[in-house]
Amino acid sequence: MREDKLLERFVFFSDAVFAIAITLLIVEIHVPHIARAPTEVHDALQALANNLPNFIGFGVSFAVIGAFWAMHHRVFGLLARHDQSFVWPNLILLMAIAFLPFSTAFMSENTNQVVPHLFYLISLLIAGLLQASLVRRALRPQYLTAGVDPGAVTAIRTRVWALPIVSVIGMIVCLMTRPAYSILVLLTLPIAVRLLIRWSRRR
Amino acid sequence: MREDKLLERFVFFSDAVFAIAITLLIVEIHVPHIARAPTEVHDALQALANNLPNFIGFGVSFAVIGAFWAMHHRVFGLLARHDQSFVWPNLILLMAIAFLPFSTAFMSENTNQVVPHLFYLISLLIAGLLQASLVRRALRPQYLTAGVDPGAVTAIRTRVWALPIVSVIGMIVCLMTRPAYSILVLLTLPIAVRLLIRWSRRR
Amino acid sequence: MREDKLLERFVFFSDAVFAIAITLLIVEIHVPHIARAPTEVHDALQALANNLPNFIGFGVSFAVIGAFWAMHHRVFGLLARHDQSFVWPNLILLMAIAFLPFSTAFMSENTNQVVPHLFYLISLLIAGLLQASLVRRALRPQYLTAGVDPGAVTAIRTRVWALPIVSVIGMIVCLMTRPAYSILVLLTLPIAVRLLIRWSRRR
Amino acid sequence: MREDKLLERFVFFSDAVFAIAITLLIVEIHVPHIARAPTEVHDALQALANNLPNFIGFGVSFAVIGAFWAMHHRVFGLLARHDQSFVWPNLILLMAIAFLPFSTAFMSENTNQVVPHLFYLISLLIAGLLQASLVRRALRPQYLTAGVDPGAVTAIRTRVWALPIVSVIGMIVCLMTRPAYSILVLLTLPIAVRLLIRWSRRR
Repeated sequence: MREDKLLERFVFFSDAVFAIAITLLIVEIHVPHIARAPTEVHDALQALANNLPNFIGFGVSFAVIGAFWAMHHRVFGLLARHDQSFVWPNLILLMAIAFLPFSTAFMSENTNQVVPHLFYLISLLIAGLLQASLVRRALRPQYLTAGVDPGAVTAIRTRVWALPIVSVIGMIVCLMTRPAYSILVLLTLPIAVRLLIRWSRRR
Repeated sequence: MREDKLLERFVFFSDAVFAIAITLLIVEIHVPHIARAPTEVHDALQALANNLPNFIGFGVSFAVIGAFWAMHHRVFGLLARHDQSFVWPNLILLMAIAFLPFSTAFMSENTNQVVPHLFYLISLLIAGLLQASLVRRALRPQYLTAGVDPGAVTAIRTRVWALPIVSVIGMIVCLMTRPAYSILVLLTLPIAVRLLIRWSRRR
Repeated sequence: MREDKLLERFVFFSDAVFAIAITLLIVEIHVPHIARAPTEVHDALQALANNLPNFIGFGVSFAVIGAFWAMHHRVFGLLARHDQSFVWPNLILLMAIAFLPFSTAFMSENTNQVVPHLFYLISLLIAGLLQASLVRRALRPQYLTAGVDPGAVTAIRTRVWALPIVSVIGMIVCLMTRPAYSILVLLTLPIAVRLLIRWSRRR
Repeated sequence: MREDKLLERFVFFSDAVFAIAITLLIVEIHVPHIARAPTEVHDALQALANNLPNFIGFGVSFAVIGAFWAMHHRVFGLLARHDQSFVWPNLILLMAIAFLPFSTAFMSENTNQVVPHLFYLISLLIAGLLQASLVRRALRPQYLTAGVDPGAVTAIRTRVWALPIVSVIGMIVCLMTRPAYSILVLLTLPIAVRLLIRWSRRR
């Protein structure tokens, strides 16, 4: 196989792991069984309400893993080649991604508790730092497609810091207010990305 | 990577999520364990009969997710390029698809109950509306391959409404008759597609 | 996307479902937990021995799904194009494949019982017949790559009947001797393929 | 499809199985539920500590399956074609890979017990030997891309023995010291690879 086919296969394997991790999130949600009873409507709504933290965890982690994938898509779209030095940093990032269904379920199963929320945020922080490191390694001149806009490269190098920053703010919020509020902090990720890019353009 | 490779990767990631969601449907079905006894044949048949709603749920959801995939295949087959504005609408559609194994299992585990059936139909309706919105966004002239038949584009824009319409009819049937009948309504999806296309051609 | 890309995507989606179904087989095997005790070595070996039917079911179904994949690989390797008429027959075959982890687990969990073994063999028979039907539909002159050897086409059309035949023989063995022996019949699949091809050449 | 497309599809299917097996590792880890209590912080940390063997098993098996994938990537990157004689040796290797989530969970669930650790190491040894056999079969002159460096071929043929050797050393350590130490032996895999390559160059 040619060099571009090898890059394709490398990217393909990563995509498959992202896709599986993102879809496995739903497997961790327990399906409620409602006894047939005059109260079955109430019981079913109650069971769904009890599952609300799981649904929120599913939605947030789906969006976060989706953002990881979109960044990977964006970065590798700028590359013309890769080499063996990418393989392990990429595998270790994928390990952190594959771990997220567990930390998501641990947080969702233990609503509003400090340790599970911190554990989740730390797992996001680690994945975010591994991604930042991979991005820095990949966006070197020797790998880039000829004619790539240097502004696009700078923008990616900047926006990759949004998730680590938001995770750390989430941890502070988790420890200083209620743990559940830290999830709200994660929802500000798109805003953080925009602020970072605006700040980087000013410099 | 070139632009067509990026579109390929985008489509590939979507395919992987469709494939995983469609195959995970089977994981949610509990495997019955039959005690060794003189009645083991009867007990095994009874256990399979008890699983019948799960098998029906598996079949219906497999067909529905298959139809979502076939539509995605059809739409992206007409495109020559995509841009960043597709990424999130597509990810949100995939989120709704990845959620279907849960709502299928919730419905199948709670045979003929109103809330689980409504919940399933609402999850289908949401996925259907997200798909209609993605299709409208994708089938714009600037993305289409040169020389695509405008009739094919109109047909797709029309048929994408079949699932939302059938889901709403299913909800009405669920509330006014027995919940299990709403699944029969879903089986009319191929007929709804044909009626819609015939109606669109008359106009 | 061009026509060959569409065929690729079609084949890719099928591959992903085959790959997920084949790998999910392991998820259905329950992981034994051994209590710490002076008898832990004996208990662990006993737990593995109890899991033996599950390991055999895993191995047999892995080989069977692998054979389905290899046949799909072989058939679509001869095609130059496909059309919409393939989509649903292929999806229905994939549904039967995605169902196999369930019927495998049902058989393995209920060692040497008639109904679970018959259920498994029937699920194989259905998948085999769906495959034979898809192969007949696909191997028509209008889809074949120019210059394909007609002998190769005939050989595939013949060998696709090996699994249905072996499944039916397995059912007879299951009903007339011990259910577990029907699995031994499945192991003769490679021999059945060779006999069928030899018989077809003689004609 | 052309010959290079068939090789691509073959490699793609393998990649999908590697990706699913590597991601399924997380599904086997049980998510702890912490009761709301004044001791919830302590209980959550305790639950995570109890899961430590599962996290270690996840990390080690992720790295091992990652190494299998990286080797497959490396080997098939040197090939220009494949034939039917590869299909089954490759499927049998994939079977051994798909089995690893089970043997990992069996080891992690039964901390520091001899049988589960030996079982895990034997499953690695078998996968490693199957890989060595596939590599020997694939790296023949008739399949290689023209102009491949013979030194690269020799290096791969040598390094493929690192995992079998390390697994056997792990078994000896498991039987002669504490079972948990055998996992530490696996961590020396990168060192074993380098020693083997250096030794092969000297010869």
